[in-house]
Amino acid sequence: MLRVAAVQQHCYEDKQQSLELTGDLIDQAASQGAQLIVLQELHASWYFCQSEDVGKFDLAESIPGETTDFLSAKAKEHKAVIVGSIFEKRAAGIYHNTAVVFDSDGSMAGQYRKMHIPDDPGFYEKFYFTPGDAEEGSGFQPIDTTVGRLGILVCWDQWFPEAARLMALAGADLLIYPTAIGWDANDSQQEQTRQLDAWMTIQRSHAVANNLPVVVANRVGQEPDPTGQTLGTVFWGNSFICGHQGEIIVEADSQLTQIIHTELDFQRTDEVRRIWPYFRDRRIDAYAKLTKRYIDPV
Amino acid sequence: MLRVAAVQQHCYEDKQQSLELTGDLIDQAASQGAQLIVLQELHASWYFCQSEDVGKFDLAESIPGETTDFLSAKAKEHKAVIVGSIFEKRAAGIYHNTAVVFDSDGSMAGQYRKMHIPDDPGFYEKFYFTPGDAEEGSGFQPIDTTVGRLGILVCWDQWFPEAARLMALAGADLLIYPTAIGWDANDSQQEQTRQLDAWMTIQRSHAVANNLPVVVANRVGQEPDPTGQTLGTVFWGNSFICGHQGEIIVEADSQLTQIIHTELDFQRTDEVRRIWPYFRDRRIDAYAKLTKRYIDPV
Repeated sequence: MLRVAAVQQHCYEDKQQSLELTGDLIDQAASQGAQLIVLQELHASWYFCQSEDVGKFDLAESIPGETTDFLSAKAKEHKAVIVGSIFEKRAAGIYHNTAVVFDSDGSMAGQYRKMHIPDDPGFYEKFYFTPGDAEEGSGFQPIDTTVGRLGILVCWDQWFPEAARLMALAGADLLIYPTAIGWDANDSQQEQTRQLDAWMTIQRSHAVANNLPVVVANRVGQEPDPTGQTLGTVFWGNSFICGHQGEIIVEADSQLTQIIHTELDFQRTDEVRRIWPYFRDRRIDAYAKLTKRYIDPV
Repeated sequence: MLRVAAVQQHCYEDKQQSLELTGDLIDQAASQGAQLIVLQELHASWYFCQSEDVGKFDLAESIPGETTDFLSAKAKEHKAVIVGSIFEKRAAGIYHNTAVVFDSDGSMAGQYRKMHIPDDPGFYEKFYFTPGDAEEGSGFQPIDTTVGRLGILVCWDQWFPEAARLMALAGADLLIYPTAIGWDANDSQQEQTRQLDAWMTIQRSHAVANNLPVVVANRVGQEPDPTGQTLGTVFWGNSFICGHQGEIIVEADSQLTQIIHTELDFQRTDEVRRIWPYFRDRRIDAYAKLTKRYIDPV
């Protein structure tokens, strides 16, 4: 059994302040016995993609860098695996939204560069982030650690069953989604409810379809729109961990900084797959058109 | 707006009796204004796959045949599109689990032969059903009717996000799942609850991932195990229709023969896709391995 924690927090504009809170939360999670600690997307600052501003590229860090050094030291200190998230500068003009993984000895186990990049009002990510490479060895590649093979995907990836499936086919023991998603204050309460429910449903469905547990860490707090044109974004929290059949095990609320945790048994995957053997029955002879943008009428 | 009904019913061992009840339910649905009526999987008899019995192949029908003639006449009578389901004899030794669609003039609009075939205790479908062809023009191909382009999949297909995606990529206006799923009486209440919830979740997720409404018609009633070795299967009903974000619009209970119905607006697909544009962002350059059975470690 593996003790897993997901950290849901509000962030500060200042990196030092954000990392200090994150450090405290990592310490707490470790003191509660967590062997795997999952942080939310881009936890070292406010979510800067609310506007398109070339100055914001200054927030990016290389690997290694300040945030990865910090996470590495915390992993080593607590002998825990930590999944963090940084705005990565890979080269001049090539920036990524990158999940970074530190093993329990503080060494870097690997990284995952967000593959699906969103772009909608308040979430101008296509301006900032180059999509992750599709080549062999990158793309939808789980990361091996001493606690298991981590299928890490980031936020917008969560809406794509293809991404979860590829991680599962590559042997992931669980799926992990660091996330920064929130409501547009202009949407009706009904629309907000539908969005949150859809977000829970799609991620739980990845558990169901792949017989894998899913860990989701999302941001909380209202962060201002730097352009002043909107009320900003209200990040909706609701971090959760679900089991191999999509059943919610533990769930955070929509507003508070908090840690959720549970124990996961990776042996259960084989148990569930014996009686719900989707992997046996996939029609791989009939899936070729999944690589098409659209199947235009003939 | 399209008025859609899903029929959930218990069945009789006798085909005439089953079709008579189905006919009454179609009449009721039509009198309530339904323009599209969806029936459950293999509605013309008891679910015969509880055991492997060569004699049961006698239940199969060709197209056209008794059941398709009956459904065609009902479609014409009510000027409604009907989605039915038959045990199809295509040739000696080639039998399919086939959804059949009749347009509002009674003509046959098309058929879908179940692509993913399950096989587990009480559901010995691999004995009876040849999987549907993968070739061009068959496989995951929506069926055009006067009320829209129907993305029809059958039961076990519901667990495969690939199937829903291919129907959506081929321009389906909605997804339709005729189903016969139930509980094993030996499973605990908790396990039964997890299974039902997983089944709702995965089908709602196809709505979410593809921004399409989903219509599910499932069987009810306890049907005996002809071998007498078990208590038989309790089909769990819970037929439902959900909207473009996976929100449940209407839902049946777990025990009663009943009709659920609602109005669907296919224009909403484009509205939802404008702001949740998954189809824009699919990483089709990185999905090639979805046609692999498993990605073995190198």
